Amino acid sequence: MPFPPLRPVVGLVLSLLVTVTAVAAPPLTAAQSDPVALGWMQGAPPPEDKRIRYTDEDYFAFPKLRWTVCHFRQLMPTVGVSRGEGAARPMTRRLDSALDAVTFTPLGATAPMRWADALDATYTDGIVVLHDGVVVYERYSGCLDAEGQHGAMSVTKSMTGLLGEILVADGTLDENARVDAIVPELHGSGFGDATVKQILEMTTGLRYSEDYADPDADVWQYAAAGSTLPHPPGYRGPTSYYDYLRTVRPQGAHGETFGYRTVNTDVLGWIIARRSGQSVAQLLESRVWRPLGASQDAYFTVDSSGTPYAGGGFNAGLLDLARVGQLLLDDGRIDGRQVIPAAAIARIRAGGDKAAFARAGYAQLPGWSYRGMWWITHNPHGAYMARGVHGQALYVDPTARVVIARFASHPTASNSANDPITLPAFDAIARALMVTP
Amino acid sequence: MPFPPLRPVVGLVLSLLVTVTAVAAPPLTAAQSDPVALGWMQGAPPPEDKRIRYTDEDYFAFPKLRWTVCHFRQLMPTVGVSRGEGAARPMTRRLDSALDAVTFTPLGATAPMRWADALDATYTDGIVVLHDGVVVYERYSGCLDAEGQHGAMSVTKSMTGLLGEILVADGTLDENARVDAIVPELHGSGFGDATVKQILEMTTGLRYSEDYADPDADVWQYAAAGSTLPHPPGYRGPTSYYDYLRTVRPQGAHGETFGYRTVNTDVLGWIIARRSGQSVAQLLESRVWRPLGASQDAYFTVDSSGTPYAGGGFNAGLLDLARVGQLLLDDGRIDGRQVIPAAAIARIRAGGDKAAFARAGYAQLPGWSYRGMWWITHNPHGAYMARGVHGQALYVDPTARVVIARFASHPTASNSANDPITLPAFDAIARALMVTP
Repeated sequence: MPFPPLRPVVGLVLSLLVTVTAVAAPPLTAAQSDPVALGWMQGAPPPEDKRIRYTDEDYFAFPKLRWTVCHFRQLMPTVGVSRGEGAARPMTRRLDSALDAVTFTPLGATAPMRWADALDATYTDGIVVLHDGVVVYERYSGCLDAEGQHGAMSVTKSMTGLLGEILVADGTLDENARVDAIVPELHGSGFGDATVKQILEMTTGLRYSEDYADPDADVWQYAAAGSTLPHPPGYRGPTSYYDYLRTVRPQGAHGETFGYRTVNTDVLGWIIARRSGQSVAQLLESRVWRPLGASQDAYFTVDSSGTPYAGGGFNAGLLDLARVGQLLLDDGRIDGRQVIPAAAIARIRAGGDKAAFARAGYAQLPGWSYRGMWWITHNPHGAYMARGVHGQALYVDPTARVVIARFASHPTASNSANDPITLPAFDAIARALMVTP
Repeated sequence: MPFPPLRPVVGLVLSLLVTVTAVAAPPLTAAQSDPVALGWMQGAPPPEDKRIRYTDEDYFAFPKLRWTVCHFRQLMPTVGVSRGEGAARPMTRRLDSALDAVTFTPLGATAPMRWADALDATYTDGIVVLHDGVVVYERYSGCLDAEGQHGAMSVTKSMTGLLGEILVADGTLDENARVDAIVPELHGSGFGDATVKQILEMTTGLRYSEDYADPDADVWQYAAAGSTLPHPPGYRGPTSYYDYLRTVRPQGAHGETFGYRTVNTDVLGWIIARRSGQSVAQLLESRVWRPLGASQDAYFTVDSSGTPYAGGGFNAGLLDLARVGQLLLDDGRIDGRQVIPAAAIARIRAGGDKAAFARAGYAQLPGWSYRGMWWITHNPHGAYMARGVHGQALYVDPTARVVIARFASHPTASNSANDPITLPAFDAIARALMVTP
């Protein structure tokens, strides 16, 4: 393998974060790295060299990650998110293969690219496009099909953030409250004197490094704390996400600069648990998944204290992810029922502090902001996104009335690797559909 | 804790087997050991002394096991068994609390016992009684409710056995074939020259010890092979169930004596995988769970090669377990559709070799037999059972048209501890319902 193995306990956490990971050689193409073609975990039993185990160092290194993204529950502990006893809400399909020919120009490129060619270029495992709630495009590849599930990675954050905004909208959670007023255990930590709003917008000032070149970086300790594998002899660190969060120290002022750190989302998960009495998995089930008419149960990975990984542990079917986007597009209503407060969605759409976001220096995301753990484009259509590190995406364009849900397994653990294609591609599809009757 | 901790990798396997485990002191009562009252894994996060982890030695020792039975997926890797996109098939309820007053005399006792009192006496977590397909009795306790899931333990064997009998009935599997003709890897092992029928009836002659007092017993090695936790330094044994099965040596003749050994069921799972091209989880999903109208997805625990634990890893909702019983009672038909072959069920009902069973010396089960991995009472009603080690049960009485599904977490890892109550209680309920209009 030309790719450096990741330390097993940190593989998952690593990939959740939008930080460039060095890739030592030109990666295999989507076709070359197809997990079915590579034979991972096929056979009864799979050949020794085709097994992927949680205890392997490279279970989440490319190309193995292309199998792992569809099989997290087969490697690690999880809790379920039930869709309830009803039938899935039917989705109308009017597939339009002409969309394959939609063209756009990737950022920094001069030659146009066809939508159909963007799929493999972004290592897409599945993509669904809804227009006015109708499925107009649907493709699966690699490890995924319509009945499969896929790790949402940091799209999880947007699910957790949506729950937070729901609680704010219905008055259960005061966004101006100090974090330590809700979670006293976080008093004195870097989160204690931040407000809920600063958590929701990730503008906390924290001494927390996500520099993977540094073996002493905090992210390794965070991953170790959340691992359900045995700790090495002599390990004296925290043994759960929450226990770890208490150890994060402050650095700089809150509210000034957007800083994308997964720990904020797990703090939000803790806040949600305290205010609602339910874990993010339980609350997502009761507030979203059961009313959604989902076609599949979903799940969260958990740490050894049973806490769902609010920052990155969500797994679901692709059509169900699209259903969530449609729920937002429809201002929280399904078949005339107000399932989640319209105000929660309005707050996300309105976005966060653009100046604070600009200070973070995302060159590919000019004029964007971050609110409720969603990425707000502030483009002329008012589009907003959930974004996962290997190209998972949920894109909502309220003007074009388009929802795009994508699961992917790009070799590079950074959206900066796929954004030059993804962002113009999604916009082009939305514009193409807007002019379609 | 007055109870000896179990070695963690073997806790689960241990409890699947019908062998008496020494309990050093009078166990806590059902009320005293209620997992909710004891506070296991409650809070965000749970207090340190209330956490239950897969890496703990005692995660499946009483009383912690009373929490664990409802939360296997939260501790270890699993694969799903989907119910599909439809609505759950409605179940009619005509609850009859008068059944609480049904009395019976426990085996070896002189005083009668009320049905209602049998529940706590057997550490029942949930019990459902169907009469002619109508729910006439339904109780939950401990960690379980109608929407929860519970480890089926060795009831799993009967699900795997049912799949085996389905394949025999539809001609996919020849019960007279040698095992090694289907799974060549088992040639030369204790299973190689056994027939499929001998596997289905567990009359294989194996050198395989389940003596828990012996630290060198084979069962420990079997558990270690199936564990998804890291192996100790220097471990050179098998690292999956299948790899282990190849190491089991023959002892004595096949076909003569019933010998209840979990390894037979995992061999059947392997046979099923080879003949059907699907794992037991996939085949149970396609052949049973989707047609069943189940109200919940189910799941299997898996080893590190992704193989479902065919001998004990199934987890499901109680009402869905009852639905399986009703499917058998109705000769494989649901709403007029023949979902599974009637012949498969007829073979189970007909039972196995009573003489071979008698040689195994189960004093509490006189005249019984074992067929298709079901326990056949050969009582006047022709009742048959699936049986799990801590009191899980699926009881089908074709004459009374009664199905009883029970999940339980009895402190003693042996049905001999609860059979004196269970067997007369189930029979008494069936008889009481038969005379009810």
